[in-house]
Amino acid sequence: MHAAVIADRAAVGTLEALVDQRLSDLLPAADQPPALLHQAMAYSLLARGKRMRPILALMTSAHLGCRRHLALDAGCALEMVHAASLIMDDLPAMDDAELRRGQPTAHRRFGVDVALLASVALLNRAFAVVAASPDLPAEARIQIVAVLADAVGSQGLVGGQVLDLRARSSHMRESELEQLNGMKTGALFVAAAAIGGIVAGAPAPVIETLKQLGRELGLAFQIADDILDGVEFAHATGKDTGKDVGKPTLGSVLGPAGARALFHEHAARCRDLLVTLDAQDAALGRFIEHCLAQANL
Amino acid sequence: MHAAVIADRAAVGTLEALVDQRLSDLLPAADQPPALLHQAMAYSLLARGKRMRPILALMTSAHLGCRRHLALDAGCALEMVHAASLIMDDLPAMDDAELRRGQPTAHRRFGVDVALLASVALLNRAFAVVAASPDLPAEARIQIVAVLADAVGSQGLVGGQVLDLRARSSHMRESELEQLNGMKTGALFVAAAAIGGIVAGAPAPVIETLKQLGRELGLAFQIADDILDGVEFAHATGKDTGKDVGKPTLGSVLGPAGARALFHEHAARCRDLLVTLDAQDAALGRFIEHCLAQANL
Repeated sequence: MHAAVIADRAAVGTLEALVDQRLSDLLPAADQPPALLHQAMAYSLLARGKRMRPILALMTSAHLGCRRHLALDAGCALEMVHAASLIMDDLPAMDDAELRRGQPTAHRRFGVDVALLASVALLNRAFAVVAASPDLPAEARIQIVAVLADAVGSQGLVGGQVLDLRARSSHMRESELEQLNGMKTGALFVAAAAIGGIVAGAPAPVIETLKQLGRELGLAFQIADDILDGVEFAHATGKDTGKDVGKPTLGSVLGPAGARALFHEHAARCRDLLVTLDAQDAALGRFIEHCLAQANL
Repeated sequence: MHAAVIADRAAVGTLEALVDQRLSDLLPAADQPPALLHQAMAYSLLARGKRMRPILALMTSAHLGCRRHLALDAGCALEMVHAASLIMDDLPAMDDAELRRGQPTAHRRFGVDVALLASVALLNRAFAVVAASPDLPAEARIQIVAVLADAVGSQGLVGGQVLDLRARSSHMRESELEQLNGMKTGALFVAAAAIGGIVAGAPAPVIETLKQLGRELGLAFQIADDILDGVEFAHATGKDTGKDVGKPTLGSVLGPAGARALFHEHAARCRDLLVTLDAQDAALGRFIEHCLAQANL
């Protein structure tokens, strides 16, 4: 293996550990009352994960010249929102999933009531963490609150989940499924890249380019996930597979070859945007390549 | 009826209408996609309500010298959080309620999935509204985000709901039930009064006194609600009654006379705090009296 690849993997591993530690620090102690709530929050948030969203925020801000991890707390807030959305999606009233990251889903472990409240508490904690973010001016914190709320709201995760549950049908076209993926998955990648830019004090056009990069990466990532969901076994992805059987995805609508081709279109657009950001050979560019390579398409 | 009482009622009515209009303006249009989500948000948020929390924020800021309605949007954010918490509390996995404010609960009208997502979207929208609050400096907006998150979090609404569902038992003492009420009901009244102070740029000791006032008012209000829940019919309160049968409340633990006495203790503390704030004869003081009188104890 090329030495640079090994070095990049080590860098990502270091950031993963940094994020994991900070996530743990930002949660209320699991033995503090109400202990059951705090245990459920920790169970979902601290489960093994790739921490792609916080790392994207950190890599982006570093590329723009931040010498310290100013995006760490806001990145952790993204991971809290992500964990909150996974708990929600898995509920019996939604996807009714039994496994997530190789473990029983939160509602199977803690009951629907506590899982649901843990999800709300994680979303709420994300805003609290941003509000208390050390070393960031109030103006940057407020911009991040707004970016986070956009990612969650009716044009983001929540709106995407409503469409997923109520409007996903075999009549949906590629463009509609891409829009849905943009809301459900793209939104938090957009927010991650934007947060990196805000923290670094980047001008508006750069933040716009970063958002596009986040969107393309998120869309590529979701296609990979859809294809994996169709073909892999639970032990490979650590979550229920086949949950989307009967639901059209880009994988089912375009077929495996068509979905792969679309994945590579998004990957190519990521690379064009990295050139615009002069990041193609930088750590940020190599991190994006690392993410794309993980999809193994 | 005394002319001043009529004038005060008219003032409260004017503020209610102001809040109702602004709540409507701050929601996404009900016909904008995803329409079902936006309809569910409007259904719950715009249902008839007393708007006590936003009005408390407005009255407090006015008492401290704000000549314009600078607390209006943050007050509306409180009402969004309140509506979100009612949807959540009513879910089958929680209180399993059928009626709320005289109408079918959100999940009976829109399904559990959409009701739940509307609740999350309202909570999220609250933070978005504060972040975008016009005419407030970024520092004030960030303080309000923090106050809101404190009110929702594991020492506020969410923590209170976990205790309510999992720890409320006949062994609970008066002090524990008061703590629970402080989390479930007091928290948003505390936030309302604090927001009024923040918006007005009040010094920290004044904000502390305002929080105490909010807490005492919230506790008084919850005792009144517990007593009503035990003795009234659905058509009087517009929600299911007897839902707390079997669950101890201050009403059941202290008996009606004891609960009334405790209500009056909290009311007396409200009046003491109003004196501290030099608000006993001002519009703020009269509004608090109006709220206490509504409990009709």
